[in-house]
Amino acid sequence: MLDLLGVAVFAASGALAAVHARLDVFGVIVLAAVTALGGGVVRDVLLGVTPPSTLRQWPYLVVPAVVALLVFRWHPAVARLRRAVQLADALGLALFVVTGTTVALRTGAPAITCALVGVITGVGGGVLRDLLRGEIPTVLRREIYALAAAVGAVVVVAGDAVGLPALPVALGAAVLVAGTRLLALWRRWNAPLPH
Amino acid sequence: MLDLLGVAVFAASGALAAVHARLDVFGVIVLAAVTALGGGVVRDVLLGVTPPSTLRQWPYLVVPAVVALLVFRWHPAVARLRRAVQLADALGLALFVVTGTTVALRTGAPAITCALVGVITGVGGGVLRDLLRGEIPTVLRREIYALAAAVGAVVVVAGDAVGLPALPVALGAAVLVAGTRLLALWRRWNAPLPH
Amino acid sequence: MLDLLGVAVFAASGALAAVHARLDVFGVIVLAAVTALGGGVVRDVLLGVTPPSTLRQWPYLVVPAVVALLVFRWHPAVARLRRAVQLADALGLALFVVTGTTVALRTGAPAITCALVGVITGVGGGVLRDLLRGEIPTVLRREIYALAAAVGAVVVVAGDAVGLPALPVALGAAVLVAGTRLLALWRRWNAPLPH
Repeated sequence: MLDLLGVAVFAASGALAAVHARLDVFGVIVLAAVTALGGGVVRDVLLGVTPPSTLRQWPYLVVPAVVALLVFRWHPAVARLRRAVQLADALGLALFVVTGTTVALRTGAPAITCALVGVITGVGGGVLRDLLRGEIPTVLRREIYALAAAVGAVVVVAGDAVGLPALPVALGAAVLVAGTRLLALWRRWNAPLPH
Repeated sequence: MLDLLGVAVFAASGALAAVHARLDVFGVIVLAAVTALGGGVVRDVLLGVTPPSTLRQWPYLVVPAVVALLVFRWHPAVARLRRAVQLADALGLALFVVTGTTVALRTGAPAITCALVGVITGVGGGVLRDLLRGEIPTVLRREIYALAAAVGAVVVVAGDAVGLPALPVALGAAVLVAGTRLLALWRRWNAPLPH
Repeated sequence: MLDLLGVAVFAASGALAAVHARLDVFGVIVLAAVTALGGGVVRDVLLGVTPPSTLRQWPYLVVPAVVALLVFRWHPAVARLRRAVQLADALGLALFVVTGTTVALRTGAPAITCALVGVITGVGGGVLRDLLRGEIPTVLRREIYALAAAVGAVVVVAGDAVGLPALPVALGAAVLVAGTRLLALWRRWNAPLPH
């Protein structure tokens, strides 16, 4: 369920980015689907789960298409788009880092692998969204993006290692990731630049 | 055989795009190979067929290289390039959607998966070609591109579901995809843009 | 060991490119890690080794991070960056072509597959590095890049076929790849352009 919620918010993020780039209705659907499903497909390919689970179930296809059409028809005024993209992106990052790490843990992979797969699942959809639009991916440009994802993945792996119940840890990690991202955006935190 | 024909026309599409971008002879060969083999490699990775079948057979390597050298040496005048790229791209899309969907059906994957894998096989090579050249992929910019691919994949899956003979269905679906694409180009069909 | 050395020099190549693009410290670490691990991850996914071996071992994660921080803190003056990137890139290409081909040979894949996987392992990290920075990948722009990689992969496959000892062949092939690349840079060799 958390996974499908991540699909929905990342689909919104992709669709808003597509609307912002003035793509037509089919381009909006494709970019929404790639953003929403890309992270999960990369996760499953890395874990050897083929065909990827996100390509095997109707909801994972229907949700991005419906979200894309809703965004296409009723997207907010252009002036508000940038904020909405950032919010949807932070939520998608949080949910996908948590579900990606959790799915990896269930396959019995080593802790380091699970954390890395979680981070890749979280940033993967956004990277594809940005590459397809010809932009440098957010994960390279935003200060606390990769860090927030890594912290969330480590929390999930550590919670699993010490035997904490999975759901509260997952929710806590998701709040941590999204909160860090949004706080960094809101407070304009800056990471060090090279001399 | 249809698969190898798709390799040849997508190689031509990649090579023409490379010539258009004034790449040298090695760049033309690499871009032709990536465009020609990219869709099939992604298809096999998604289906868990490793190493990908297109990386296991000499013809899949020789054909793109030969096509690239032919295009490099005797490419038509620059003024005619755009049309030739579009034609080769439409044929490659049609052939790869059909062969991708068919290969997926043979693995026993669910219908939805086969249709998605078919679409990804069809658009994958062109997406890689455009990304490597620093352009926004055709599938996002052209109106009826993703739609044509999806219609072809659904026809192949539906034909398989009701037990029609595979070859006529495959040919019909390929004609449908390429025809829709070329008609959309020729008639300048436009899809709706966001308000 | 050669593999980890390739990780270190490609990490340096990615980190220098990131510093050159004025990314912040997290962007430098991410680009270093993607450049260093990308080729090996693609190699393992193509060979069906999941999760990829580079995502299963601490050194493969620690080395890029440490190299990135060293480059970030003590990178040479900007005027000297271009040369350093080219040198690190040539060495990384050489090491990854050799280790990629060797790993593929151990899985018992056909010779053609091993050579292709070796080339893809060698150029993969650099392609991801360039795509993420919004540049056309080196493999398409530099004259003798793909050729040098292909020659090295063929030498390793041929040495294995005739039963030569693996280590001297590997070192010879690596010297051949890096030497060809650097000689092409130094002598400004040009490949033919289209008419």
